[in-house]
Amino acid sequence: MSFETIPNGTVTSPAGFLAGTTVAHIKYADRKDLTLVVSERDCTAAAVFTQNQVAAAPVIAGRETMQANRNRIRAIVANAGNANASTGQPGLENARASQEMTAVALNIQPEQVLPLSTGVIGVQLPMDRMQAGIAAAAVQLDPDGGLAAAQAIMTTDTYAKHLAVQIELPDGMVTIGGMAKGSGMIHPNMATMLGVVTTDAQVEAGVLDGMLRTAVNHSFNRITVDGDTSTNDTVFLLANGASGISIADEKSKSAFQQALTHVCTELAHMIVRDGEGATKFVEIQVAGAVTEADAHAIANTIATSPLVKTAFAGSDANWGRILAAAGRAGVTFDQNQAALWIGATAADELQLVANGTPTHYEEADAAAIFAQPAFKIRLDIGAGKASTIVWTTDLTHEYVSINADYRS
Amino acid sequence: MSFETIPNGTVTSPAGFLAGTTVAHIKYADRKDLTLVVSERDCTAAAVFTQNQVAAAPVIAGRETMQANRNRIRAIVANAGNANASTGQPGLENARASQEMTAVALNIQPEQVLPLSTGVIGVQLPMDRMQAGIAAAAVQLDPDGGLAAAQAIMTTDTYAKHLAVQIELPDGMVTIGGMAKGSGMIHPNMATMLGVVTTDAQVEAGVLDGMLRTAVNHSFNRITVDGDTSTNDTVFLLANGASGISIADEKSKSAFQQALTHVCTELAHMIVRDGEGATKFVEIQVAGAVTEADAHAIANTIATSPLVKTAFAGSDANWGRILAAAGRAGVTFDQNQAALWIGATAADELQLVANGTPTHYEEADAAAIFAQPAFKIRLDIGAGKASTIVWTTDLTHEYVSINADYRS
Repeated sequence: MSFETIPNGTVTSPAGFLAGTTVAHIKYADRKDLTLVVSERDCTAAAVFTQNQVAAAPVIAGRETMQANRNRIRAIVANAGNANASTGQPGLENARASQEMTAVALNIQPEQVLPLSTGVIGVQLPMDRMQAGIAAAAVQLDPDGGLAAAQAIMTTDTYAKHLAVQIELPDGMVTIGGMAKGSGMIHPNMATMLGVVTTDAQVEAGVLDGMLRTAVNHSFNRITVDGDTSTNDTVFLLANGASGISIADEKSKSAFQQALTHVCTELAHMIVRDGEGATKFVEIQVAGAVTEADAHAIANTIATSPLVKTAFAGSDANWGRILAAAGRAGVTFDQNQAALWIGATAADELQLVANGTPTHYEEADAAAIFAQPAFKIRLDIGAGKASTIVWTTDLTHEYVSINADYRS
Repeated sequence: MSFETIPNGTVTSPAGFLAGTTVAHIKYADRKDLTLVVSERDCTAAAVFTQNQVAAAPVIAGRETMQANRNRIRAIVANAGNANASTGQPGLENARASQEMTAVALNIQPEQVLPLSTGVIGVQLPMDRMQAGIAAAAVQLDPDGGLAAAQAIMTTDTYAKHLAVQIELPDGMVTIGGMAKGSGMIHPNMATMLGVVTTDAQVEAGVLDGMLRTAVNHSFNRITVDGDTSTNDTVFLLANGASGISIADEKSKSAFQQALTHVCTELAHMIVRDGEGATKFVEIQVAGAVTEADAHAIANTIATSPLVKTAFAGSDANWGRILAAAGRAGVTFDQNQAALWIGATAADELQLVANGTPTHYEEADAAAIFAQPAFKIRLDIGAGKASTIVWTTDLTHEYVSINADYRS
């Protein structure tokens, strides 16, 4: 059992999925900003939502729908340009109204529709344009509509993020497709992260839920601080069973999980690489921790340190900033046990720190690694056996420009 | 009882304190980088040190000295250009050697000397230049040496930070002087924050310790994330009793505490205003929390959010980012109870959010406030009665430039 990538795969690569997209003028003048992803048959569904206390209206509506009806989902309605967040009761009614409009357009029930929104906070959705857009998108439904759908959920993303894989199982082939949008600098807590994953496998909803959580923990959650999510962050997974193949035995589950985690990880990496102003893709490995939570706390503190990230931007292998960030992560360790390596590839590691003090490396060799478009750092704190990996990027002038001007 | 500011006051404004400063060439070619602050008589001393696991050698040595000898301190030896951090056992021996060199130069005991270092991490102190510098500084000791001392501890600071106040007590006048250095962007966890406070009052060491902790909690800790300190952060307070006035009764203690907190707060504000690349000084008030810790968690999350800080830089009153940051601080609250005001002065407040949704304010009015060099934001989460204040600044292109190039 194995999986392979489908060239230019999308959320409509799995059998029985269609997408329709339109220019609804939600905020932008002339770009696709509204899309429907539709299954020809009922889906089991799983979802992971933001932990933010300031959850957007579509998150509240989506949670309600998932609790009531996760075995009969048929469609997702998504818009860019307006997050429908901090919009109070009118905003919640608008989210529900967009579910109803989609249901009317598709001749299904409102509780079979999941809503997604991304964009500006604190502005009510223009419901006349939502209605017209949903109607227009519904007549565009196309089994090749996945690419346009991925384009329609972009905000400051510079390219559409999508892929699909085929998994060979004993009973035949199933397909998983996915799309996502970023692109606050590094971690989705900074901008809305939306993900939609589809599959033509048949998977019981409870199993699907566990599988999505595992996949998200190894992918989207590795590019975020724990619990640090935006008002709108959401990942949906829909399984429509159109392949006729059920994911029930342990071997199938294992193969499906592996492929699902791969799809989510690839999408997460695309988000990092397309981070606002990003010029570097950096993998941060932390090992030698007593618990995985400790390792994660240190990795996230390093990954979010402005001083570390500006050093990445400047190709300055300033390891003192990395150790200083690790030291303030709230995890107890003995600095004299700390060791640090950097490398552009796994085979090409350079040790900068041993026993808490610098090795006799050449500064030029370290700078050459940090000058690469992708590199990793590996910190071992020598306290235990737990480890983690997170992915991040650098902090550049371009990031400041994008975010000092985003609304205006 | 009241206090007033002494024009151009410094750490040598209190009676019986001298400072000597020299160009020791620790790292810089032609600027003062080594200073001795010396008391003519034994001092009681208090200290607050970094919580960072990667504590620098002078912090380890300083902790030992304080534990053994906090009633007989005579001098502080401080250098810029080299942090003596991540330098292992040789670094610790060098920190102790600088205490010994100072003791020899001043004819006192090594355990009467407290060390401070700031600068690059991971490089051993050049002890020949330290020795020559300490000897040279010792012959420059001057009761007017405080300004030069404040200049000698600067790294990326653009101006020296110092002040002094006189307190009128029933028995006469006592003086408190202080100096500090920043200047990682906002919070001292990012760069080394050093503070030295002197007084000619007589204060028992245990009382002094409590007073310094209270002052630091209302000042330097309001510009930092809790526990998030650099490898070298240290604040020392020395009391030499040269005024002949003892701080023993409750009224004197209260007046002294008030003045001490003022000195530390002014120094903390100077650090924020001189933050790397900073163009705005922003006060963040969070009210309506159940506990002060909750309020502080929210205020710090807002104060450290790159999206919020770039909005400050762009004079964009993008309150959605402020609420989104509050919502991911790990504190439970009902977004429908949240209210937000901004203002350039206390009298000039504009409410942007009521009951979690935007008010009908004019965007131009909000932008005009955020365009000021100093303004405040006030968030009430409507959950309780606890509140806090923190101070921060904006995230600018200049910050990226400074920190992408700092070492090179």
